Amino acid sequence: MEELIVIKIGGNIIDDTEALHTFLCDFSAIVSPKILIHGGGKLATQLSSKLGIETKMVEGRRITGEETVKIVTMTYAGWVNKTIVAALQSRQCNALGLSGADANLIPALKRPVKDIDYGWVGNIDKAKVNTGFLKNILGVGIVPVIAPISCNADGHLLNINADTIAKTVAEAMIPCYRVKLVYCFEKSGLLLDVNDDSSVINEIDLTLAEQLKTEGIINAGMVPKIDNALEAVSNGVSEVVIGHAKNILQMANGEKGFGTIIKA
Amino acid sequence: MEELIVIKIGGNIIDDTEALHTFLCDFSAIVSPKILIHGGGKLATQLSSKLGIETKMVEGRRITGEETVKIVTMTYAGWVNKTIVAALQSRQCNALGLSGADANLIPALKRPVKDIDYGWVGNIDKAKVNTGFLKNILGVGIVPVIAPISCNADGHLLNINADTIAKTVAEAMIPCYRVKLVYCFEKSGLLLDVNDDSSVINEIDLTLAEQLKTEGIINAGMVPKIDNALEAVSNGVSEVVIGHAKNILQMANGEKGFGTIIKA
Repeated sequence: MEELIVIKIGGNIIDDTEALHTFLCDFSAIVSPKILIHGGGKLATQLSSKLGIETKMVEGRRITGEETVKIVTMTYAGWVNKTIVAALQSRQCNALGLSGADANLIPALKRPVKDIDYGWVGNIDKAKVNTGFLKNILGVGIVPVIAPISCNADGHLLNINADTIAKTVAEAMIPCYRVKLVYCFEKSGLLLDVNDDSSVINEIDLTLAEQLKTEGIINAGMVPKIDNALEAVSNGVSEVVIGHAKNILQMANGEKGFGTIIKA
Repeated sequence: MEELIVIKIGGNIIDDTEALHTFLCDFSAIVSPKILIHGGGKLATQLSSKLGIETKMVEGRRITGEETVKIVTMTYAGWVNKTIVAALQSRQCNALGLSGADANLIPALKRPVKDIDYGWVGNIDKAKVNTGFLKNILGVGIVPVIAPISCNADGHLLNINADTIAKTVAEAMIPCYRVKLVYCFEKSGLLLDVNDDSSVINEIDLTLAEQLKTEGIINAGMVPKIDNALEAVSNGVSEVVIGHAKNILQMANGEKGFGTIIKA
């Protein structure tokens, strides 16, 4: 089975123009079929602030009112997505920018209100991903670049967590490819000491992850990231790696000593 | 040869939520393969104004500086494009939002500076349109929805005239389809008396167009629209119609008495 590499880049890379362009240069050089999923970075918050719209975050997630869904659609699916696509085109990488609404790629449901009303935020389901469309365009050498926006059946736009899109798309593509999932962020991997970028844990599994959570080494924003990664491998993604965007080529090529590999 | 309908909707429809949704409902009902090209409306100007960025227009065309290209990309390729795509999805019309940068659809060149420096505005060429990609996705029942944004070979985003995109895409698709081009705007067609929406001229050709220009009946913004349309038919587009968005179904179906038909 052919390998497909699903790569997610976080906001810190998007906010740093030079780091983003270095990343996109490396990304272009990856030979396998590949999909890029991007977050939004601080641009949405900056634009909201300029327009006098208050940004509300609960547990790292944006509360998305009518005005905010407009802002995130403009910045993520508009500026960030097209900037990445244009930069990839200039490197002869034939990118196609997508939201989850396009080609019915990732139909979503508005998240039901329980303790917190997140507003126009969506939940997605791997069973509903339009894998036929992705397979078609990957087959003609096109590289999907996905913004974390989708819509519900009523046609209302929704903000989606980009990590979740990466995991969902990776899992949905398992019947068609041997899928590798790479989460790129601003650290070299899961660190034993958060202040020491050389203290990368090379490999973790569920047992070690539970232990590191108890010890507080996996904490805050890393908890959902690691949980996502563990779930992906247990659902059949062949490998999940978490590491620094500057090492994307080594991680994509499976070189030892780059990033943290999550094993089943 | 199968018919392809290329439809352009202007800013006045986009600015009117109710008119836009009525239009999209009718558009969904068109049975032939179809492509929608949209302008941007007043949103870009409104957003610029809120952000304190001055909007400069020369002869109806936006002067596009670095900040402005960001604004038009956010509004046209982000908000307007995804709003249309999501609304079409909710009507079981499988839309795919695109800019000219996506899938290398419409590679552009920055317009050379002559008398006026339009800034980050692009010129396009029908010979460079990625017709293979359009044919592929039309063939699987997907409906392309194109925002008037593209990029040059350096990966710089560019603002493109939406009427020009519609004409260029229509002409590029001639080898694959019998192409019909419909320009929708806020009037019922080319009017003999601009204040009387019932004074539609049913049909014009080059000779009549020249006469009406001399008489001042075709003036201002209508001149480039009619010139575009005449050029399209002389280049092999089978029919060009200009009329009101509310009559899109009748114009698409070729019913008599709706819009102005431009003949070679």
